[in-house]
Amino acid sequence: MVRVAYHDLLDALRRALDTLGFDARRAGLCARLIADANRDGVASHGLNLLPRVVTMIRAGIVDVTAEPVRIAAAGALERWSGNRGPGNLNAYACMARAIVLAQEHGVGCVALADTNHWMRGGTYGWQAADAGAIGLCWSNTMPNLPPWGATKPLVGNNPLVIAVPRADGHLVLDMAISQFSFGALAAYRTRGERLPVPGGFDENGALTDDAAAIESTGRLLPIGFWKGSGLAIVLDVIAALLAGGRATHEITARPEKETGLSQVFIAFDPMWCAGSANTGLADRIVASLSTESGDEQVRYPGQRTRALREIHLRDGVPVDPSAWQFVQSMA
Amino acid sequence: MVRVAYHDLLDALRRALDTLGFDARRAGLCARLIADANRDGVASHGLNLLPRVVTMIRAGIVDVTAEPVRIAAAGALERWSGNRGPGNLNAYACMARAIVLAQEHGVGCVALADTNHWMRGGTYGWQAADAGAIGLCWSNTMPNLPPWGATKPLVGNNPLVIAVPRADGHLVLDMAISQFSFGALAAYRTRGERLPVPGGFDENGALTDDAAAIESTGRLLPIGFWKGSGLAIVLDVIAALLAGGRATHEITARPEKETGLSQVFIAFDPMWCAGSANTGLADRIVASLSTESGDEQVRYPGQRTRALREIHLRDGVPVDPSAWQFVQSMA
Repeated sequence: MVRVAYHDLLDALRRALDTLGFDARRAGLCARLIADANRDGVASHGLNLLPRVVTMIRAGIVDVTAEPVRIAAAGALERWSGNRGPGNLNAYACMARAIVLAQEHGVGCVALADTNHWMRGGTYGWQAADAGAIGLCWSNTMPNLPPWGATKPLVGNNPLVIAVPRADGHLVLDMAISQFSFGALAAYRTRGERLPVPGGFDENGALTDDAAAIESTGRLLPIGFWKGSGLAIVLDVIAALLAGGRATHEITARPEKETGLSQVFIAFDPMWCAGSANTGLADRIVASLSTESGDEQVRYPGQRTRALREIHLRDGVPVDPSAWQFVQSMA
Repeated sequence: MVRVAYHDLLDALRRALDTLGFDARRAGLCARLIADANRDGVASHGLNLLPRVVTMIRAGIVDVTAEPVRIAAAGALERWSGNRGPGNLNAYACMARAIVLAQEHGVGCVALADTNHWMRGGTYGWQAADAGAIGLCWSNTMPNLPPWGATKPLVGNNPLVIAVPRADGHLVLDMAISQFSFGALAAYRTRGERLPVPGGFDENGALTDDAAAIESTGRLLPIGFWKGSGLAIVLDVIAALLAGGRATHEITARPEKETGLSQVFIAFDPMWCAGSANTGLADRIVASLSTESGDEQVRYPGQRTRALREIHLRDGVPVDPSAWQFVQSMA
């Protein structure tokens, strides 16, 4: 990793996206969402994904000019089509819309069909929490995870994001349903480290903490074994049903062809979340984790992100050298 | 386990509840919800919980005459108080209300404060799916699970239920955030079996599949290790925030004193779920799990429940002999 100033990263991304046909406003937002992922320590779902996105744009799979449109509405629930536009712009627009619906109806839900990889899922959790809203969203994916009882990837690792606003640091859970992502497995392998807990099956069908063995079988573990397997299934069904979109088994199982995803964005009214009954509640919950545990290390979701953000804004944002070279070469 | 006819179980429960001061209508519903848990193979959260509930009723912790009341409303989002009434009746009423709100607004959410243990969480998922609605609900609990990085139980195992209606068998996920419940650990210990996967830590702080060792440390594992730990935290915060109720760290950590819980019930409009864009979608997803996996054993959530229900209605519902003796002695 090399470090670059946040604004240099943002500028380089904006210039690169300009060359792909994004209009200026959308290039600016798309660049910010990608730069923010690296700023927050999630390079795997920020700059590192850009080469794949560019490939898909050039192949006509992602349409940079496509805007999401509303297809159907029933009060607080709406169905949008992403029209195969950039996944992060579609997702950002739909969480923004869910927040507006929540302000009108107390709770709001936008189900999005025909979209693309949303890149860093946590983005839309931070977006909701920054607006003072509780946010809950998930995406289906191509088949990339064997359900419990199978050896082949029949379900998606369907990332799930849950965010709660808090003045002194939002709580943002951003997790895929697999115990480790492919990116995490590669990182452990490269560093020559064992996984901290078993992450999948080896070629003999035994649980293993050897990342390379899991990469070779493709048999990643769902979180909680059979529990995560069931969770992945229902998240997929709900996203496809509410959005009227595709389910995991209908999505091409190759990363550079993965399109037509279904996603769900739910928000709760910021005024409700900030109600007087709630004053200081999230703070007390966070405090209870550290106070009562003495010197143990209990982290709340989002805690590490916030710490990294501060460090990276001060000392520079870590970027993968080849990805940084890629974006600079485009501009 | 002994087997009794479903209707004999239901009648015995109704008579037992009559003696506790429930009115006839509520005794009938409460009895049905408990009998249905055993019928569906979840005796641990059905009849086996009755002695504890009766103890709490006699101690004045659960008020059998208390009805849930609406405290606040903002369109599709409502806050109710359970008034420390029977947990399953409160939860059932709130999921029913969420379904009505969903019919009016597309999506509906009821947050419930000051309630009691809802017994079998899956009940409210089946309830939603039987009404044609997608249902999503969860409860916080007393502290009974060490978060990742701690040795003491600072978070709840906060059961999460997600249900999708389907003509040929609903999909209903009903899972606690711990990998195994205390009931499951006891069952493995009694049978002298190892857990199928590690379920917690032994006294040396090592992961173990020895149920007795985990019961002795109380260090159960969250699903997905750090992931389930984060999930338990955000589910608790959201339930307490939306309901204006208590968070896990404010709940007495003794089963027979566990009261004042916070819960969330979300439903999506049955008409939307049954829309023409969705015809057969859930069936195709279920089919994709078996077809593509050949002879592998992939189950969808709820599949086993439905099979057990059929067997138990035909051959008798399994009941724990001492719990059955308990309910008969009350009537």
